[in-house]
Amino acid sequence: MPGMPRIDPRRLLEDLNALRAIGAQGRGVVRPAFSAADMEARRWLARRFAEAGLDSSIDGVGNVLGRSRKAGRALLLGSHSDTQPTGGWLDGALGVVYALEVARALAADDTTRGLPVDAVAFQDEESRFVGCLGSRSLTGALTAAMEDGAADSRGVPLAEALADAGLTGVPRARLERARYAGFVEAHIEQGPHLEDAGRRLGVVTGIVGLRGIRFVFRGQQNHAGTTMMARRLDAATALYELAYRINREFPTAAAERTVWTMGRVRIEPNATSIVPGYAELDLQFRDPTDAPLDAFEAIVARLVAEMNGRGGVTVEAQPARAPIAPTQMDPRLQSHLEAAAEQHAPGLWQRMPSGAFHDAGIVSAMMPAAMLFIPSIGGISHDFAEDSRADDIVLGCQVLADAAASILIEANG
Amino acid sequence: MPGMPRIDPRRLLEDLNALRAIGAQGRGVVRPAFSAADMEARRWLARRFAEAGLDSSIDGVGNVLGRSRKAGRALLLGSHSDTQPTGGWLDGALGVVYALEVARALAADDTTRGLPVDAVAFQDEESRFVGCLGSRSLTGALTAAMEDGAADSRGVPLAEALADAGLTGVPRARLERARYAGFVEAHIEQGPHLEDAGRRLGVVTGIVGLRGIRFVFRGQQNHAGTTMMARRLDAATALYELAYRINREFPTAAAERTVWTMGRVRIEPNATSIVPGYAELDLQFRDPTDAPLDAFEAIVARLVAEMNGRGGVTVEAQPARAPIAPTQMDPRLQSHLEAAAEQHAPGLWQRMPSGAFHDAGIVSAMMPAAMLFIPSIGGISHDFAEDSRADDIVLGCQVLADAAASILIEANG
Repeated sequence: MPGMPRIDPRRLLEDLNALRAIGAQGRGVVRPAFSAADMEARRWLARRFAEAGLDSSIDGVGNVLGRSRKAGRALLLGSHSDTQPTGGWLDGALGVVYALEVARALAADDTTRGLPVDAVAFQDEESRFVGCLGSRSLTGALTAAMEDGAADSRGVPLAEALADAGLTGVPRARLERARYAGFVEAHIEQGPHLEDAGRRLGVVTGIVGLRGIRFVFRGQQNHAGTTMMARRLDAATALYELAYRINREFPTAAAERTVWTMGRVRIEPNATSIVPGYAELDLQFRDPTDAPLDAFEAIVARLVAEMNGRGGVTVEAQPARAPIAPTQMDPRLQSHLEAAAEQHAPGLWQRMPSGAFHDAGIVSAMMPAAMLFIPSIGGISHDFAEDSRADDIVLGCQVLADAAASILIEANG
Repeated sequence: MPGMPRIDPRRLLEDLNALRAIGAQGRGVVRPAFSAADMEARRWLARRFAEAGLDSSIDGVGNVLGRSRKAGRALLLGSHSDTQPTGGWLDGALGVVYALEVARALAADDTTRGLPVDAVAFQDEESRFVGCLGSRSLTGALTAAMEDGAADSRGVPLAEALADAGLTGVPRARLERARYAGFVEAHIEQGPHLEDAGRRLGVVTGIVGLRGIRFVFRGQQNHAGTTMMARRLDAATALYELAYRINREFPTAAAERTVWTMGRVRIEPNATSIVPGYAELDLQFRDPTDAPLDAFEAIVARLVAEMNGRGGVTVEAQPARAPIAPTQMDPRLQSHLEAAAEQHAPGLWQRMPSGAFHDAGIVSAMMPAAMLFIPSIGGISHDFAEDSRADDIVLGCQVLADAAASILIEANG
C-alpha cells in the first residue's frame, strides 16, 4: 500500500526509554498499579497523548485515555503501563507507546491523517488488586464484588490505594461500543516460542482461560519443641501436602498447553521455631479450553475434601475474584495484522495462542479485539532481565501502524 | 527448714506485670531481641537489679547482669527477657523476675542474707539473630562464625541491630566459672504435659538436642502463563516436594519425643502469577538423644541428592549456624529443686525432659545447671494467648527461693 504511515523509530525508542526511566531499578522497572511511579508514568502518558493531538484524561481507576477528535469509527490501541513488583521495561509499556506512535504516524501521513486512533493505558493488568481492573472498568465488566475487600499482598486495600493516588471521586470512564471498529493490543510475547521458531512477529489467535484458587489453612500455632507431633495442627504441613499432591495429580488431567502455578505462600508467623497456625497458598491454572480447567477444579475439590475429612488442619478453597474464560481473537482484525506482518517480514511471522492473559481478553467481550506479539529475548518476562531486540520493537510498531490504517480504511470505507 | 526466705507474691506479680507492659500487644508481648521495647525492658531490669542491691550492667550483646556483692560461691539465676515476634507475657520473663525476687527474698531473711545470688536476663534466646546469643557470649561459646552474616528474617544484620541498640563498643561480659555453684533457670513449661498430668511443678532432667537446616532452592523466575510446564525451573515446586517427603519419611526414623518443624518459608518474588526462581525452607528437628537426629540428617542428604540428580531446580542444604547437643541437667541441683518442690507441693511435681531449648542448655557446658518448670495453661506458648495460673507462678518462685537457699548453704557450708 503506497503512501502508508511511517513510524519514527527514534521517537518510538526515545519514548519507550523515557517511560522506562519512571520507576527504573537497574535494568528493570518497579511500577505496580497506583504506586507513585505508576501515577507519574500515567501523568507523563496523558501529556504525551495530548501532544499527539488526542483529548487526554486519567479516569477514576487510573486508566489513561487519549481520544481522537477525528470523525468516523475509531480504532482503540494500547495496553497497560503498570508492572509486576519486579517487572521488565517493556511488557505492557510497549503496546501503550506503540499506540502513541501509531496515532502520531497516522496523523502525519496524507493518506491516513483523517482516521481516528484512540490510545489507552489500562490500570492494574498485573493484579496488584484486581487483574485487568482498568479494562474491566472501561468495558463495564468490573463488579462491586470484585472491588469489595480487594487488597494487595501486603494488605493495602484498593480503596486506600485509590485515595493515595488522588483518584477518590474522579469519574470512571466507559468505552462507547458504537465508537469503535475494534481494539488491537501489542505486547511482548513473554515466552520463548517466537525466538525458538526464528519468527519476529506473532498474530494472536486466542487467549488462554485463567482460574485461581486461594487455599486457606487453619491450625493451631504452638511451640516447635514442646508440642509433640501427634498433637500438632501445623498449617504449613497441610500446605506442603496439598501443593505436592496437586503437582502430582494435575499432569494426569493437563492438555498440551495447560499450565499451573503455586507462586505465592503466606505462613503465619513464619518463624523457624514455631508451629504455624495459619497459612495461605495461591493456585493459578490456565488453558486455551475449559475442559482441563474443569478437571483441575474437580481434583482440587477431591483433595480438599479428603484432607478436611481427617479432622485436623482445615483447608478452605476460595475461588479467585476474577476468573477468565478462554477467548478467541477477531478473525477480521487478525487478517489485517497478518497482511501487514507478511508485507514487512515475509515468512517471519506466525499465528499463536497467548499463554499469558491480557486486557484484550477483557475488551474482546465488548468489541472485536486482536493482539500482536514481538519476541522476548530468552523468553524471559516478569523479571528485571526482560528485553527485546530494538529492530523487533521497531518492526512491530510499523506493522501495527499499517494494520491500523487498513482496519480504519475498511471500517470507514 | 525453719526461717527460710519468703518471697513476696504481690511484689513478684507486680514486677511481672510491669515488665509485661513494655512491648505489650493485647494479651501478648512483642519484644524481639534489640527492638526498642526489648532494650527498654533491659534498662528497666537493670534498674530493678540495682534496687535489689546488685551491681547491675548491660553488656555488649544486651545481657543484663546483676552481681551480688556478697562473699562466697554464688548462684546464678535467670532466663531471657526477649520474646518471639508474637510472644507470650511469661516465657523467659518469668525466670528473670523470679531471679530478681529470689535475690530480694534471700537478702531480707536473716538465715540467707549473706548468700550471693546473681541475676541475669540473657539476650536473643528466641533466635532473632543467633539462638541463645546472650548465654553463648557470657559463657565464651559464641564464635565469630555464628555472628558473621547473622541477620533476622527481614534481612537486618546483627551488627546493625547492635548499633541501633547503642551497643557498639560496649564490652561483652564473661561469667567466671570459679565464682558459681551453678545456674538455675525457671521457665514456663511451654507444653501441656504438667497440666495434663495434674502437676504444678516440673524439675527438668535434660534438654533435647536441636539441629536445623536451611534449604535453598534455585530455579528460574518466569511468567506463569507463557512458560510451559516442561521448561519450568520452579523453586516453590521443589520446596513443596522436599517438605512433603520429609514429613512422610521422618516418622520412620523418629523416637517417642522426636519433633520436627518447617515453619518458615521464603519464596521470591512470592506473586500469584510468577513462577518463583528462588525459595528457602527452614527445617528444625529435636530429640533428647542424637540417634534420631543423625537418622534425619541421613534422610535429608538422600532426598537432596536425589532431587539434585534430576538436573532441574538445585537444592542446597545449609546446616544451621548453631546446633544444640542434647544436654543433661545437674543431678545435685535437681535434688535441691525436688526437695523444695516436695515441701511446698507434695506429690504435685514431676521430673521431665524439656522439649524446648533454653539458655540452661548453653550454661550447662560451663557449670552445673538445672531448670524448674511451671504449667502453661492449655500448653500454649509462643503465642499472645500464653498464660499460667497466678498461684502456680507464686509457688514456682517460692520453690526456687528455697532451692537457691539450700544450694548456697551447701556450697558455702
